[in-house]
Amino acid sequence: MLSAAARSRLTVVLVGARNPQNIGAAARAMQDFGFGDLRVVNEFTPPFEAAQLEAKSAVGAGHVMAAARQFDALPEAIADCGLIVGTTAIGGRELTQAIVTLQEAAPKMLAALEAAANDGPKVALLFGSEKTGLTNEQLSHCSLLLTIPLFAPEGARHLSMNLGQSVAVCLYELSREGFEQSRALPVMQRPLASSGDRERLTQRLLELMQASGYARRFPANAREPVVRSLAGQLGETRDEAATWLGLIRHLLRSHGESERTE
Amino acid sequence: MLSAAARSRLTVVLVGARNPQNIGAAARAMQDFGFGDLRVVNEFTPPFEAAQLEAKSAVGAGHVMAAARQFDALPEAIADCGLIVGTTAIGGRELTQAIVTLQEAAPKMLAALEAAANDGPKVALLFGSEKTGLTNEQLSHCSLLLTIPLFAPEGARHLSMNLGQSVAVCLYELSREGFEQSRALPVMQRPLASSGDRERLTQRLLELMQASGYARRFPANAREPVVRSLAGQLGETRDEAATWLGLIRHLLRSHGESERTE
Repeated sequence: MLSAAARSRLTVVLVGARNPQNIGAAARAMQDFGFGDLRVVNEFTPPFEAAQLEAKSAVGAGHVMAAARQFDALPEAIADCGLIVGTTAIGGRELTQAIVTLQEAAPKMLAALEAAANDGPKVALLFGSEKTGLTNEQLSHCSLLLTIPLFAPEGARHLSMNLGQSVAVCLYELSREGFEQSRALPVMQRPLASSGDRERLTQRLLELMQASGYARRFPANAREPVVRSLAGQLGETRDEAATWLGLIRHLLRSHGESERTE
Repeated sequence: MLSAAARSRLTVVLVGARNPQNIGAAARAMQDFGFGDLRVVNEFTPPFEAAQLEAKSAVGAGHVMAAARQFDALPEAIADCGLIVGTTAIGGRELTQAIVTLQEAAPKMLAALEAAANDGPKVALLFGSEKTGLTNEQLSHCSLLLTIPLFAPEGARHLSMNLGQSVAVCLYELSREGFEQSRALPVMQRPLASSGDRERLTQRLLELMQASGYARRFPANAREPVVRSLAGQLGETRDEAATWLGLIRHLLRSHGESERTE
């Protein structure tokens, strides 16, 4: 699990992104997973400025876009970074560097982020342009190359993902072990049903089967172990179990009444 | 690892998505991870039709969008499905059902998909509308609720992700154990440097240090274990190691020549 200090050492660098919406989508994914340092490398400013304008109205990406910085060239953008990680699609290109899967790269990145937590050099995660990905020249700045494994249809030569989705998947993998307690929204988790709850359900269900005559007609289904297993499926949470119990009690009562009125 | 047959048993259901671009993005993510059955539940047809029109020009989502089906109501869309999994953001809502993380839900979904591989009931993965997510009524159709753990900034009450990114992250988690060999594009993986390569590097580097006089000035740095550790950092792949070896040999030779001409 990444500490907040380690989390702040990650820099996401979008190199040559052309579509302002994609820059905004990357910013939103960063905000979703608690990363804040976005850098955009573009020879021309329009995509970055358009993305900043859009961010004012965009859902959830505001803080990250507002703090994002633009650079003219990649070396300046990563000057304060130690581990430089490049993302690349597989296929269609000769690379002299080794490529690992995102899953394999994540522990190395997490270790570097934790090691950098006390003001060490940042870890840069680079994404290339929508059209070409990172060029060989850009990849040569990287000491670690990762790819998100994708499904190759028959005859596929090249696979690539949408830029915003790639960023989201990479940051999800880095956050997969969860967040510090204080940073995670409390799951409004209902208490789960206990074995006591289940046993009460079992006993009332048995009574209902007997009182209704079901047990007489289908004795094999009304044996206690069978009923306990059936009752185990009634409600995962305590609330659900209570609802079932209420219903069974109600049926027991109304059955008793209908027998009396018969 | 999901078999192709199991993979075909997953149905992604978008309930009330409003933005055709998001429907297209979901379709693209499905294609990226090798899933094909997309169902869109909308009271009104415009978003679906617009998404299909866009898909004709959209990158990579064509096959999935072309095969996608539209339904007027959720029950029809999931009529042939067994395990119904709902995705939900955390916070702001009272739910009586239990919620697990995506990571916890994945093994259950994978098991259900494998069990369904031979024509069993499909597994449905539901995503709600961009604005409200799945409603409580829609969630009540689900037997498993999952959430993608997100980072909660100070004071956050509610967190939610972009629809296309949510779909991508969920399908990534389901595909995280990889694809069958035949389905994965071969990584154009360079052979890694062997320990023999590293030893050759170590020896030539030692020679260079001695020939150049470096070893005399800094004997502690020229001890064999130190040099072996240094050489171990030169090139991860065999190609890179060969390049380093070539350079060191060249320096050795040119050093010898310069000594002769001095």
